[in-house]
Amino acid sequence: MSQHFLHEFLKPKSIAIYGANNTFGTTMGTMLLLRIINSNFKGKIFPIHLRLDLVLGYKAYKKISDVPEIPELVVIVLPPRVVPQVFKECGEKGVKKIVVISGGFRELVGDRKNTLTEEIVEIANNYGIRFTGPNCLGLFNNWIYPEGDGNFNLMMWGDHSKRSKFSMASQSGTLASHLWLDPEYPDFKAGKSISLGNEANIDLVDFLEYFKDDDETEVIGLYVEEIKRGKKFIELAKEIIPKKPIITIYGGGSEAGNRAIRSHTGSIGANIKIFDAMIKETGIIKTDYVEEFLDISSMLLTPNFPYPKGNRIGIVTFSGGPGALIANNAERKGLIVPEFSESLQAKFKSKLPHTASWSNPIDITFDMNIFNLYINFPKMLMKSGEVDVIIIYGAMGFADVVSIEQQNTKISQFIELREDMSNRIGEMDKFLIAPMIKTSHKYSVPIIYINPQSYANEWSKKIREHGGIVFQFWDRPVNALAKICEYAKYRSKFNLKKK
Amino acid sequence: MSQHFLHEFLKPKSIAIYGANNTFGTTMGTMLLLRIINSNFKGKIFPIHLRLDLVLGYKAYKKISDVPEIPELVVIVLPPRVVPQVFKECGEKGVKKIVVISGGFRELVGDRKNTLTEEIVEIANNYGIRFTGPNCLGLFNNWIYPEGDGNFNLMMWGDHSKRSKFSMASQSGTLASHLWLDPEYPDFKAGKSISLGNEANIDLVDFLEYFKDDDETEVIGLYVEEIKRGKKFIELAKEIIPKKPIITIYGGGSEAGNRAIRSHTGSIGANIKIFDAMIKETGIIKTDYVEEFLDISSMLLTPNFPYPKGNRIGIVTFSGGPGALIANNAERKGLIVPEFSESLQAKFKSKLPHTASWSNPIDITFDMNIFNLYINFPKMLMKSGEVDVIIIYGAMGFADVVSIEQQNTKISQFIELREDMSNRIGEMDKFLIAPMIKTSHKYSVPIIYINPQSYANEWSKKIREHGGIVFQFWDRPVNALAKICEYAKYRSKFNLKKK
Repeated sequence: MSQHFLHEFLKPKSIAIYGANNTFGTTMGTMLLLRIINSNFKGKIFPIHLRLDLVLGYKAYKKISDVPEIPELVVIVLPPRVVPQVFKECGEKGVKKIVVISGGFRELVGDRKNTLTEEIVEIANNYGIRFTGPNCLGLFNNWIYPEGDGNFNLMMWGDHSKRSKFSMASQSGTLASHLWLDPEYPDFKAGKSISLGNEANIDLVDFLEYFKDDDETEVIGLYVEEIKRGKKFIELAKEIIPKKPIITIYGGGSEAGNRAIRSHTGSIGANIKIFDAMIKETGIIKTDYVEEFLDISSMLLTPNFPYPKGNRIGIVTFSGGPGALIANNAERKGLIVPEFSESLQAKFKSKLPHTASWSNPIDITFDMNIFNLYINFPKMLMKSGEVDVIIIYGAMGFADVVSIEQQNTKISQFIELREDMSNRIGEMDKFLIAPMIKTSHKYSVPIIYINPQSYANEWSKKIREHGGIVFQFWDRPVNALAKICEYAKYRSKFNLKKK
Repeated sequence: MSQHFLHEFLKPKSIAIYGANNTFGTTMGTMLLLRIINSNFKGKIFPIHLRLDLVLGYKAYKKISDVPEIPELVVIVLPPRVVPQVFKECGEKGVKKIVVISGGFRELVGDRKNTLTEEIVEIANNYGIRFTGPNCLGLFNNWIYPEGDGNFNLMMWGDHSKRSKFSMASQSGTLASHLWLDPEYPDFKAGKSISLGNEANIDLVDFLEYFKDDDETEVIGLYVEEIKRGKKFIELAKEIIPKKPIITIYGGGSEAGNRAIRSHTGSIGANIKIFDAMIKETGIIKTDYVEEFLDISSMLLTPNFPYPKGNRIGIVTFSGGPGALIANNAERKGLIVPEFSESLQAKFKSKLPHTASWSNPIDITFDMNIFNLYINFPKMLMKSGEVDVIIIYGAMGFADVVSIEQQNTKISQFIELREDMSNRIGEMDKFLIAPMIKTSHKYSVPIIYINPQSYANEWSKKIREHGGIVFQFWDRPVNALAKICEYAKYRSKFNLKKK
């Protein structure tokens, strides 16, 4: 990938930055430089400032021409009117890659439009400069040092010490950065993320091209308001889709949404019919909802995610209500909840108390035989070939159930805890989860565990550590599965094994 | 309410329990008794056990006739075949209220049906006994001691030291209990909750009647698979709706859903068309999704929730992407995102940089004037009368923004933190949130704050402490609002002020 022209945007060895000073809280450029420093960027940093000698402890230069080498990347956070001049000076210096954070280029300014975009585009063309933005938040790359710690960060907060192979290109800065603000909830690690801004020079299609052959990218996310090069986009998407899923969240559609987009990037907003036709032709996964975007992406990022071979859902539950609601929602979203064959029903029936049900959903009711819930029944379903995905309701933490007796020492002296239970409670995951994830991969039948105790619950965490998929409630995994099954069907046409 | 026949189910002074022993982990009756004890139930407890003298430290009785008084409530967790005999003995003793946890009464048992339900119904009629269940999880009442600590709990885990005026009646035990398993996330406190089971004697309509006049109930939740007494249900709902919202999640509808219901409670499943007609006639809020159920309920439980006077949404954001997505979803769900009048636009324009937009959504862009975002713009919108609800994207924690500089002490020596900022950061909520909640009540225009950092974030917590409504992402509040606005419209016909 080091030959691609975007390489220095994601893995620069040296950076110059315009617009940072030593005042925190009001100056955006300072925040950006702080992020670069805090992200453990190991390259050289050259702040450019007309008056200061030191910026955040780094030697500052009055002009780019004073910098002792040609920085691989220049970041500009200055008022828009001075940016053309800065572009010229960068061009003279030999700079080839620029990130323009500043806004105010293409937007409607009162009743007139300014020509700043045309000016910097022309200068860039003259000097062979490529640039992202203007009106963007920057970039993030958790793979700048694939073997070590640290990242390259212009726009994200928080801890990103764990990384994924998720790459995002977004026409909204928020969708490129705010998705990773919650340290707990979506367990959705960042890989690469790009805020595209107004796309005056580099656009979404350029990054799609980069992600196509990038080994550090396995799942691609897009936030789209308009696609400038539709034909090339379709061409690339078709190449990518058999190998890597693309998930798109689309900002247009409604009257108010298009009005918002028009104000946002000055674009007239894509025609939703054309966009939907593109989606259909390419096999891109489309969603209108940010949580669904996160759910689908997280699921597909599960290590060795077993793509379902069809859209038939098997439900195992210890409670009838969630079973009914899962079934309803699955049918509503185009999935199938087949009634099991008579022979399969007979097999379940023989292992269940007479109060249970076994036609699909399988409701084991009060008979909490955890081996049936976690192992026997899912395995029987996989072997049967009658379902393509399994949802298990009631994957609750055993330690939490048992701890109830510890809440009241007055009582605990009277309780006999079954010895086998207390001894094995700490390692339940090793024999209930780990082998099932293996089996799930073998049959290519994903299992979704639902634990209403919360996503951050210890048992939920243990399930995820084994490569399991856990949700707190049952609606969102069904919504996500409906789209994943559709993608899996499209993908299967190409008969490709997941790497 | 002490005159109502359900009173002793929710506030019993003495309880007898069948089916508890001293073995934990396999015996459901033991778990139930443990919950009663751990909930700080202050009444008398009489375990009934044929052999044991002590059950969890309580003196046990061989038969109900040995108990020195008539227990106000009896809980039965025994195999179904012995329940009729127990009912007779309870009847002889003078017991009038029973909770039948045991399942296996009305369900299909293999190919034949048993007659146990008919048997206990007849015995109950003979002795004037009223009972919930069979096949239920029990009850929970956080208002058993309105002035003090403790609750009455047969079925919930965890800490319920905080209570709300939310009352739930559910035809699924899970929907009556598992909604409160997450200590953090929905901030959705329990009030009263009833698992109805098969409704052989007491049904959902009975509890609806109880909740109608109950001062400890302000919002009513229902999980419905079938409604046995449709006419009475509609009559009661019509009486309740002008004063208290009813939110219903419905388990039927699809083929597989109805199959699940048939197995679950033996019912044939309600006809969704009839059910939807009932909903429409009564003004009940209906949802198919558990998270939406929680979102709507939580919002309506907000102290002095200001009911919107219409369905026009005003959006204030510092990022275009979320603005467009909120607008799209609002229109999709039947809400209106009106373009502001020219005079109002002019007012916003005069306070915004030229890169911003002001037609609705208002996108303040990089110009992070927090007083505009939190106070000036929402207040201008309320005064304008052009919107009925306000959504603010970007209610991020200030402390978190500032703390970035503390991550790196090497850098912090070079930074000048603006003094006014660092001094006031701890009390931002007092001047940014508290006054706006007041204004929001004054104009009856709800404000929804979106903070992508997470629901449990400190700043989000502070907003909620002032009575504000906070979501992590923007889709779910819009979905919930669409249904709340519809209810508010229905409710406004009755011209009632919220108490």
